[in-house]
Amino acid sequence: MKAHQFLLLFLIFMPQLSMSQERPRDLGIPFGILPVGDLNSITDVSGVKVGHFTKVEGENIRTGVTAILPHGDNIFQQKVPAAVFVGNGFGKLAGTTQVMELGNIESPIILTNTLSVAAGMEGVIRYTLSQSGNESVGSVNALVGETNDGYLNDIRGMHISPDEVIQAISSAQSGPVKEGNVGAGTGTVCFGWKGGIGTSSRKLPESLGGYTVGVLVQTNFGGNLQIAGVPVGEKLGKYPFRDALEKADGSCMIVIATDAPVLDRNLERMAKRAMMGLAKTGGIASNGSGDYVIAFSTNEGLRIPYGNKGLINFNELPNEAMTPLFMAVIEATEEAIINSLFAAESMTGRDGNSVEALPKEYILNLINLKKE
Amino acid sequence: MKAHQFLLLFLIFMPQLSMSQERPRDLGIPFGILPVGDLNSITDVSGVKVGHFTKVEGENIRTGVTAILPHGDNIFQQKVPAAVFVGNGFGKLAGTTQVMELGNIESPIILTNTLSVAAGMEGVIRYTLSQSGNESVGSVNALVGETNDGYLNDIRGMHISPDEVIQAISSAQSGPVKEGNVGAGTGTVCFGWKGGIGTSSRKLPESLGGYTVGVLVQTNFGGNLQIAGVPVGEKLGKYPFRDALEKADGSCMIVIATDAPVLDRNLERMAKRAMMGLAKTGGIASNGSGDYVIAFSTNEGLRIPYGNKGLINFNELPNEAMTPLFMAVIEATEEAIINSLFAAESMTGRDGNSVEALPKEYILNLINLKKE
Amino acid sequence: MKAHQFLLLFLIFMPQLSMSQERPRDLGIPFGILPVGDLNSITDVSGVKVGHFTKVEGENIRTGVTAILPHGDNIFQQKVPAAVFVGNGFGKLAGTTQVMELGNIESPIILTNTLSVAAGMEGVIRYTLSQSGNESVGSVNALVGETNDGYLNDIRGMHISPDEVIQAISSAQSGPVKEGNVGAGTGTVCFGWKGGIGTSSRKLPESLGGYTVGVLVQTNFGGNLQIAGVPVGEKLGKYPFRDALEKADGSCMIVIATDAPVLDRNLERMAKRAMMGLAKTGGIASNGSGDYVIAFSTNEGLRIPYGNKGLINFNELPNEAMTPLFMAVIEATEEAIINSLFAAESMTGRDGNSVEALPKEYILNLINLKKE
Amino acid sequence: MKAHQFLLLFLIFMPQLSMSQERPRDLGIPFGILPVGDLNSITDVSGVKVGHFTKVEGENIRTGVTAILPHGDNIFQQKVPAAVFVGNGFGKLAGTTQVMELGNIESPIILTNTLSVAAGMEGVIRYTLSQSGNESVGSVNALVGETNDGYLNDIRGMHISPDEVIQAISSAQSGPVKEGNVGAGTGTVCFGWKGGIGTSSRKLPESLGGYTVGVLVQTNFGGNLQIAGVPVGEKLGKYPFRDALEKADGSCMIVIATDAPVLDRNLERMAKRAMMGLAKTGGIASNGSGDYVIAFSTNEGLRIPYGNKGLINFNELPNEAMTPLFMAVIEATEEAIINSLFAAESMTGRDGNSVEALPKEYILNLINLKKE
Repeated sequence: MKAHQFLLLFLIFMPQLSMSQERPRDLGIPFGILPVGDLNSITDVSGVKVGHFTKVEGENIRTGVTAILPHGDNIFQQKVPAAVFVGNGFGKLAGTTQVMELGNIESPIILTNTLSVAAGMEGVIRYTLSQSGNESVGSVNALVGETNDGYLNDIRGMHISPDEVIQAISSAQSGPVKEGNVGAGTGTVCFGWKGGIGTSSRKLPESLGGYTVGVLVQTNFGGNLQIAGVPVGEKLGKYPFRDALEKADGSCMIVIATDAPVLDRNLERMAKRAMMGLAKTGGIASNGSGDYVIAFSTNEGLRIPYGNKGLINFNELPNEAMTPLFMAVIEATEEAIINSLFAAESMTGRDGNSVEALPKEYILNLINLKKE
Repeated sequence: MKAHQFLLLFLIFMPQLSMSQERPRDLGIPFGILPVGDLNSITDVSGVKVGHFTKVEGENIRTGVTAILPHGDNIFQQKVPAAVFVGNGFGKLAGTTQVMELGNIESPIILTNTLSVAAGMEGVIRYTLSQSGNESVGSVNALVGETNDGYLNDIRGMHISPDEVIQAISSAQSGPVKEGNVGAGTGTVCFGWKGGIGTSSRKLPESLGGYTVGVLVQTNFGGNLQIAGVPVGEKLGKYPFRDALEKADGSCMIVIATDAPVLDRNLERMAKRAMMGLAKTGGIASNGSGDYVIAFSTNEGLRIPYGNKGLINFNELPNEAMTPLFMAVIEATEEAIINSLFAAESMTGRDGNSVEALPKEYILNLINLKKE
Repeated sequence: MKAHQFLLLFLIFMPQLSMSQERPRDLGIPFGILPVGDLNSITDVSGVKVGHFTKVEGENIRTGVTAILPHGDNIFQQKVPAAVFVGNGFGKLAGTTQVMELGNIESPIILTNTLSVAAGMEGVIRYTLSQSGNESVGSVNALVGETNDGYLNDIRGMHISPDEVIQAISSAQSGPVKEGNVGAGTGTVCFGWKGGIGTSSRKLPESLGGYTVGVLVQTNFGGNLQIAGVPVGEKLGKYPFRDALEKADGSCMIVIATDAPVLDRNLERMAKRAMMGLAKTGGIASNGSGDYVIAFSTNEGLRIPYGNKGLINFNELPNEAMTPLFMAVIEATEEAIINSLFAAESMTGRDGNSVEALPKEYILNLINLKKE
Repeated sequence: MKAHQFLLLFLIFMPQLSMSQERPRDLGIPFGILPVGDLNSITDVSGVKVGHFTKVEGENIRTGVTAILPHGDNIFQQKVPAAVFVGNGFGKLAGTTQVMELGNIESPIILTNTLSVAAGMEGVIRYTLSQSGNESVGSVNALVGETNDGYLNDIRGMHISPDEVIQAISSAQSGPVKEGNVGAGTGTVCFGWKGGIGTSSRKLPESLGGYTVGVLVQTNFGGNLQIAGVPVGEKLGKYPFRDALEKADGSCMIVIATDAPVLDRNLERMAKRAMMGLAKTGGIASNGSGDYVIAFSTNEGLRIPYGNKGLINFNELPNEAMTPLFMAVIEATEEAIINSLFAAESMTGRDGNSVEALPKEYILNLINLKKE
C-alpha cells in the first residue's frame, strides 16, 4: 500500500470512529414521535445482518457493495415474505417481478452501483448455489439494486466483481451498521452533498404491537433538502433549477425490515410509505431517479419453506393494524436519509471530482441546535 | 326468406325447447381434463348464492342484474379474501381499487348494464346499510361490473333501479343457476350471437387438494369463436375484420369462486388465468372490451372479521400448490362462456334490433358431435 | 328560506369574504421555491373550471359536491389525457380502470362523500347523455371520488342527489375557487381540525417551459401535521397514537391539472408525486385512508377526438423534461392542503359533533410569523 | 472437436436445412385469419435483427443466447417505445421497471438461461458502453429474459459468458430466423416435448393500416397442448396432473415487434394479448412459469433521441385502431409457439436426460392433415 493510499483510508475511516456521537438524533434533531430501537438501525430487527464491501482504489474507484440478509439461515430454503414498491423506475433493480409475483425473497439483498448489478446477481447466485442444502437448486432470484456513483467513481470500469459481492454477504453481521461512505454508499451524492449509507429504526409501543421497523438507505438523489422541516437547501443555495442548471437527478434505494407478522400485500403498503419519508427530506423523485423500496418480514412464523406444497399456517396482522407500521416507516426513512448525510465525509474521486460533506455545524445553527 | 334460411332458423330454434338437458358438455363437447362439480356451476362452491333480476319490458327494455354472494352471512361483517384482474379496462367496474388495496370483498358482487352501475352501487349500499349488525357502518365498497347491452336494450334509459338490484340480491340462492338471457345477460351479444350468463365449475381430485373452483360469466364480447378448438366463427362467416366492417367489441365480466384457502395475491393469479380461458373461445379482448375478473375464496378459515385489529390465524395454500387451481380456472371459464352461448335464445329488442341464438345443430355437425 | 337557515348561510359564507387575505402564503408561510400562478389555484390552468354544490341543512347534513372540468367544451367528444395514481386504495373512486387503460378522461371529475359516489356517477352520466352531440353515446366513464364526512354529516342518509351533482357541474367556472367548508369539503376533517377544499398552483419559469400546474384537494385525513416544516401536530397535542387512541384515518382526494403537453404515462408520474406533497404536511396515508390522485392535461394539442381511428399528431414533452413538473406538483399539493385547513371554519354537525378550525394565530406564533 | 461432438452438431443442425418446408403453416395447420408477412418471422418488421449463439458442448452443456435488436442503429441513442407485460412473474427478466417507467428500450433484448441473466446484462452493458457515440454513457438498462433449461443443460455451471452474449448481438441480422434448438432455445422443453425458438408474423390488410406484427418466442413451458384446436396433449397422454405427478412448469419469453406507430401504453396492451395466444396452445401459466412479454415499436417517427428535453412530435395510433393489432399478436404468438415445437429436434443432454421432438407425423394424422 502506498502512502497516499494509506492516507486516503485514514481519511475515510477516521471520522467514523466518532460517528455514534454525531448522529443527528444525538445532536437534537427531531424525527417524529415514535420511539427508536436500541441501535437506531435496521439491525434492531432481530436476525437482520448487514455487510459492506468498500472499494476505494487509486484516484478513480469509489464504489462498493452493501448486503442485507433477512436472517442468518439459508434464505433460499427459508424464504421470507417481501414486496417491492417502485417509487420511480429509472433504475435497474433486478429480481423485482418474482418478488411481486410470489411475495417472497429467497436470497440476500444487494446494493451496488448501476453498472455492477450483473456482478451483484452473479455473486448472489454463486453464493446461493454453493450453500449447503442448495445442491439441486437451479433457479435463484437475485434482488440487486443500485444507484449511480459515476460522478466520483469510474463506473464504466465495472470495478465490482462477483467475489466482492460474496465478501459483502459473508461479512454481514448484526449489531451497529456503518453509515456514510461505506459499501454501496461509498461514492454517492445526495442533495448536492456527499451521500452514502444510512439507517434508522422504530420500535412501536407494546400497546401498538411492540414491533420493530428498520430502514437502510443508499442515498444518491436530489431535491430541496429539508432537515427538521427547515429548508436547508434553500438557505445553502443548493436546490433544483435554481438557475435552470442545477440538477436534481439521482436515486435512492430503501430497504425496510420488520419483525411484525405482515405478508406481501401489507409489506408493499409499508414500502409505499417510504417514499413519503423521502419526501420529508425534500426528495422529489426526479425523472432520472431510480427510487425503489424493498420490504420484508423476518417474523419466524411467516417463513416459507422451499418446495412445500401443503397448507401453511400463518398468524398475520390485519389491515386495521397497519397504520403504526406505516408511520414507523415514514419516520425511520426520513431519519435514515439524514443519517447518511451526517455520516458521509467529503470525498474526491474520478477525474478529481469532489463532493463536500454536509456543513453540519452551519446546519445545526440554522435549526437552532448548535451546541454552545 | 329463402328455404335454406328457413331451414337454418328451424334448426336453430327447435333444439332449444329442451335447453336444460342441452348444456354443451351434455352434448359431448369437451372442455379440458379436470372433473366438474355436481352442478357444473359457480354454486358448486359451498355457500355461493346467485340471484337474477331480469327486465324485459315493451320493445326496448332488455336488461337486468345478476348478484353473486360469496356466502349467506353478513358479508360486510365477514369479509372474504378477493382480487380483481383487469383484462382490458375499457369498462366501469366500481370498487376495484379497494379490493386491490385491502384484498377483500365486503358486499355482494353485482353485474348489470354499463349505464346502471350507479344503480348497482346504490342498491348494494342500501342493502348493506340496512342489514342487521351494520347500523354504524358508514363506508361500503360496492363491487359493480357491467357490460354494454345497448344494441338490444335502451341503455340510455337507465332502466335499472336500486330496488331492482336489491331484488337480485335478495333472490340469490344456492343450487342450479339459470344461464342465457337472464339477469345481467338478458340483452348481451357474444361473437355476433346472443350471449348471456353462463357458469361452470371444476372439482380437483383429492390428490390435488379436492378444492372446487366455480366461474360465472356475463358474455358480451367479440372475436373469432372457437368451440372445442373448431374455428366456428370462420366457418359461419362471423369474425372480426372480415370485411373491415365487422366489429369485435364488447366486454366480458368473469367471477371466480373457490373454497380453496387462497389469499388475495394468489386469487389475483387465478383471476389472471381466466383471460386465458376466454382466449380459448376465440375472444381477443378488443380495444372496446371491458374484461374484468373478480376472484374470491369462500374458505371459512379465511374470513376477515370487520374491525378486528388482532392477529389473524390462517391456513393458506403456498404458491407451489396453485397450478391445478389455475388450470381449473382456465377450463371452467372456457366452458362457462360456451355455456352462455348455448343457453341464450334469439332476441329482438330496441328499435327492432335482433340477435340470433348460436346455430347449435350446425355447430354440433361442424365438430362431429351431431346426435344421430 | 327561514331565518335560521339564513343565519347558517351567513355563518358559513361570511368568513370567506376575507379569505384571500388569509391564505397561508399571504401570511408569510413558505411553500417551496417555484413561482405560483395568478390565483394560486387550479383554475390558473387555462380552461379548467370548478363548481361547488354545498349542502348544509338542519343539524345533520353537512356535505356537498365539487366538480372539476378539464375544459369548457364537450369533454366526451374532446377527451383529455389523464392518469390516476392510487396512494392508498381504501376508497371508492369510480372510473379508475378505464382511465388507466385508455389514458384519458371523458367527463367532469366529481368529488363528494363516500356513500354518494353512486349519485355522482348518475349525475355525470345524465349530464353527459344530455349534452348536445352526445345523442348516440351509450357508455360514459364517470370519475367520481370521495372522502368520508360521516363525523359531521349524516352520511348514511345519502343526501346528495344526481341533480345536485349536475348543479355542481353546471355552476363550474374559471377564476377564483372557494376553499374550506364548501362543496365536497363541507363536512371533512383533517389532522383533527376542520378540513375542506384547498387549491394552489405553480407556474414554471419560461426557461423550464413556462407551464402551469394546478392542484385541488379535498382534505379529510390524519397524521402528524407539519406547517412550514414545524411539527404543529405535536405542539398542539394532536397526532396519531398519542395514547393509542387517537386516530389517523381519513382520506385525501387530489386533482392535478396542467397545460403542459404530457400524456398519460407522465401524468401518472406527476400524480405519484402528489403523495410526496401530502407527506410534507405530515399525512401518513393510514390504513383507512383513501388517497387518490387524478392528473390531466388541458393542452389543446393533446385532445383526443371521440371515435377517431386515424393517426393522431402530438407534441409531447419527453421524460427528461418532467422533473420541474414533478416539483411543481409536490409544492402545490402541500400548499393546497394547508390552504384547505386555513380556509375551513369550525363546524358543528351530525349528533352535535363539532370540529374546530385550525388555531391559526397560535400556529403563526409557533412558526414565528405572527403579525405584530 | 471429438467425433461424437461432431455427430451431435450434425444431428442438431442437419434437420434445420429443410425447416422452411416443414413449418406448420406449410403443412396446412391453420392459425387464424390474418395474412402473414413474407418470412412469417419477427424480422418481417422492418429493421428488426435476430442473432443466436448456440452452445452445445460435451454431454452436459445445451444452452445459448438469442439477441433481438429493434433496429440496426445505436439503440441507446435512438431508443424505441416499449412495454413489458408480466404474464406470470416467476422469472428473472432484468430491466423491467425502467421499461415500465420510461416507456422505452435502449439496448438489444437478450434471452438466455435462468442462471445466465447476469452474463446477459454484462454483455449488453459492455456492448453498449463500447459503441461509438456512447463514450459518456454511465447507465444502461439491459433487458435480459430467460427460461430454465436445467433439464438438458448444466445450468448451475453458468456456461454463458458476456462475450458470448456480445457474439449473439453482433451476429444479429435481418432475414430468416432459425427456429428450434438454437440460441436461447437450445435446451428448452415445451409441453413435455423439445421446445426452442419460434417466430411468426402478421401483416394487416391496408384497410386496417397495413402494419406488420412479428413475434419471437423461447418456449419452455407446460400445459395441455392444443394444435389447431385439437387436444394433442390429451391424445398423446402428456398433460398436467395426469397422475398427480406430471409437471406443467416452465416459462415462456415472448418478444413482439411492430412497425405500427404505437407508444408504450398501447404496446403494453398488445403485450397482454400475447398470453391469450399462448393460452390457445394449451399453456396454463403454471405457478413455476416465468411468462413475460416484451413489445416494442420500430416506427421511425417514434424514436426517442437520448438526452432530448424539447417537445417531441409523434404520429400515434389512437386506442380505437388497436384491435387488429391485438388480433395479430394473438395469432402470431400461437403460431410462433407451435413453430418452435415443429422446428425443435430430439435432444439428449445433462446426465443423459433426453427429450423427444414432437411426433409430427402422428399429430398431422390427428388433425387430419397427414399428407398421403
